[in-house]
Amino acid sequence: MTHIYTVGIDIGGTNTDMGLIRDDGTIIARRNIPTNRYTDFALYVKDMMHEIDDMVSANGVCIDGIGIGAPNGNFYTGCVDNAPNLTIKGVLNFQKEIAKYRSEPVVLSNDANAAAYGEMIYGGAKDLNNFIMFTLGTGVGSGIVIDGVLVHGKTGCAGELGHNILIPGGRQCSCGRKGCLETYTSARGIVQTFCELRASGLTSSITVADAEVTSKMIGDAANAGDEVALKCYDMTAHYLGIAMANAVTFSSPQAIFLMGGPTKVGRPLLLPLRKYFNEYILNIFQGSCEIRMSELATNEVAILGAAALVKLKIK
Amino acid sequence: MTHIYTVGIDIGGTNTDMGLIRDDGTIIARRNIPTNRYTDFALYVKDMMHEIDDMVSANGVCIDGIGIGAPNGNFYTGCVDNAPNLTIKGVLNFQKEIAKYRSEPVVLSNDANAAAYGEMIYGGAKDLNNFIMFTLGTGVGSGIVIDGVLVHGKTGCAGELGHNILIPGGRQCSCGRKGCLETYTSARGIVQTFCELRASGLTSSITVADAEVTSKMIGDAANAGDEVALKCYDMTAHYLGIAMANAVTFSSPQAIFLMGGPTKVGRPLLLPLRKYFNEYILNIFQGSCEIRMSELATNEVAILGAAALVKLKIK
Repeated sequence: MTHIYTVGIDIGGTNTDMGLIRDDGTIIARRNIPTNRYTDFALYVKDMMHEIDDMVSANGVCIDGIGIGAPNGNFYTGCVDNAPNLTIKGVLNFQKEIAKYRSEPVVLSNDANAAAYGEMIYGGAKDLNNFIMFTLGTGVGSGIVIDGVLVHGKTGCAGELGHNILIPGGRQCSCGRKGCLETYTSARGIVQTFCELRASGLTSSITVADAEVTSKMIGDAANAGDEVALKCYDMTAHYLGIAMANAVTFSSPQAIFLMGGPTKVGRPLLLPLRKYFNEYILNIFQGSCEIRMSELATNEVAILGAAALVKLKIK
Repeated sequence: MTHIYTVGIDIGGTNTDMGLIRDDGTIIARRNIPTNRYTDFALYVKDMMHEIDDMVSANGVCIDGIGIGAPNGNFYTGCVDNAPNLTIKGVLNFQKEIAKYRSEPVVLSNDANAAAYGEMIYGGAKDLNNFIMFTLGTGVGSGIVIDGVLVHGKTGCAGELGHNILIPGGRQCSCGRKGCLETYTSARGIVQTFCELRASGLTSSITVADAEVTSKMIGDAANAGDEVALKCYDMTAHYLGIAMANAVTFSSPQAIFLMGGPTKVGRPLLLPLRKYFNEYILNIFQGSCEIRMSELATNEVAILGAAALVKLKIK
C-alpha cells in the first residue's frame, strides 16, 4: 500500500515543531527549532526548510503539501499577521517565503482551526461533518466545521469563540473588551475564579499565594476532593456550558469537542459541564449534540492539525 | 427571454400567503387562505393546492418548485414540527402531502432562514456569500449563510440566534430559559425595556398603561425626540450590538442584515447600533462587516424567501 505524506508545522512563541505525517495519522519524524531565537523572518524560514528537507529526504518520501498552524494565521493570505507572542514582527508571508524553497502547496490557518481540522482528518471527528472544537489553554480558541468545511468567513479568521462576550461588562480581557469567554474558561480564568472564591473566605487545601496558583494545581486539588477547587470547576463548567449551548444555536453541530490543559482535569469539569450544557441547550436541540474529548494526543495535535490543513487545499 | 417561475408559501399562524414568483423577484400573483380556520392537515393542504393550481394555470406558466417558510420548519424532513402557533397540531409532513398533488420539488425551512435566503436570491445580498440575517418581530430569528450555503446543521434547525443567551440569569424567555437575545430585542423586549425605564421614574410622552404600549408607539416617540424612547432604543442597540459582535466571532460575515417591524424605526436604533457594534466587535474583525437593512419589501419578504429555498435544492 502506498502512503501519502504531509508536513505539519506548529508555530508557537517558544518553539516551532515540525512533523512528517503519514496519511493514517502516524508521525514518522519530528524536528524542532526555537522560534524565540529569531527576529529575522527569512533566516527563520531558511532554517525551518533545512530541517524539513532533511526530515523528508532522510525518510525517502515525497510530500503532498505543508500545513501550518499559527496564532493569527490567515487562511486566505497565507500570512501570520502581527502575532503578539512572536519575536519576529510584522506580517509574515509564509506561503511566499516557503515557495522559494519548495513547490508543494502551503496552507496556513490559526492553531485552533488546525486542531479542529486535525480532529476531522486524523482523530475522533472522522465520521462527522458538523462539529465545533473548543481549545482551552492560555487562551480559549475554537474551530468550526460545517458540512465538512472549516469555517473561515470573510476575513479568514472566523471561529474566535473564546472572544464571544459571555458576561457583558464582565472580566477584563486581553483583547481590550470585557466579559469574553476566555476570561472565565482559560487556564488563567480558572485560576482567577479560584482566587476569587478563596478571597471570599472559603478555605482550600491550596495555600500558596494567588500569583503561584496554577490551573493544574486546582485540577489536582479538585480530584482530591477539595471543595473550593470543585466549586471553581463547577463555575467554569457553568460558563462553558452556556457558551456551548449558544454555539449550538448557531450551527447545530453533531458534537462539541474539547481539548487543552484545563480539560485534562476530567470529571470535576466534565460532570457539571454535561449537566449545565443539557440545562442551557435550547429545547429543539436537546439530545442532538454530544460533548466529546479530542482523541489526539496532546503533544501531537498541533502538528497533526497543521498537516490536516493541506487536505483543505487539495479537496 | 424565458423566465423561470417558483411558488413561495409563507405559513403564519393566522394566514397562509402564497405567491407566484418570477426569477427576477417579481411577484406575479398572490393567494391567501386563513391558516387558523383549519385543524385538519389534509384539508388544509388540499385547499392550498387548489389555490396554487389555479394561480399557476391562470398565468399559463410552469414552476420549478415550491418553497415553504414556516415556524419550526425542518429542512431535512420537510416537516413542520409541533409549531405552537398553528391550529393544526402535530408533525406536519408538507413534502409528503404536497407530493399527492404536484411533482415539483418541495423545500421547507424556518421563516428566518427563508428570509436570509430570499435576501441572497432576490434582495441586497445577491453579491454576498457570507452574511447573517437577524429578523426582529414578535420574536427574534436569524438565518446564516456561509460560503453561499444556508446553515442548517445536524438538526436542520441551525441559526436560532434569538435564543443565544445574552445575559445569563436575565429576562425570562418563552423558551423556558433566561436571558435570550429575544427577550431584549424583540418587539416585546423593547416594550419591556421601555416600561422598566418608565417605572424607574423617567417621564415619557407615552402615557398609556404598560399593557397598551407597542414597539411602534415607542418608535414614533423616539423619532419625535422622546428621551425615554430614545434611551430605550439605545439600550436595545446595546444588546443587539453585543449579539452581532458575538455572531461575527463565529462566522466572520461580510454583512449583517436586519429586518422586521422594530428595525423600521430607523435612526433611533441604527445610530447607536453602529456605535455599539464597532465598540464590541473584536479587533481582528474591525471594518470587515457591514450592517445593512433588508432590501425586500416587508409584505413580500416572506413569500420571496420561501420561493428562494427552491434554489437550495436545485443547486
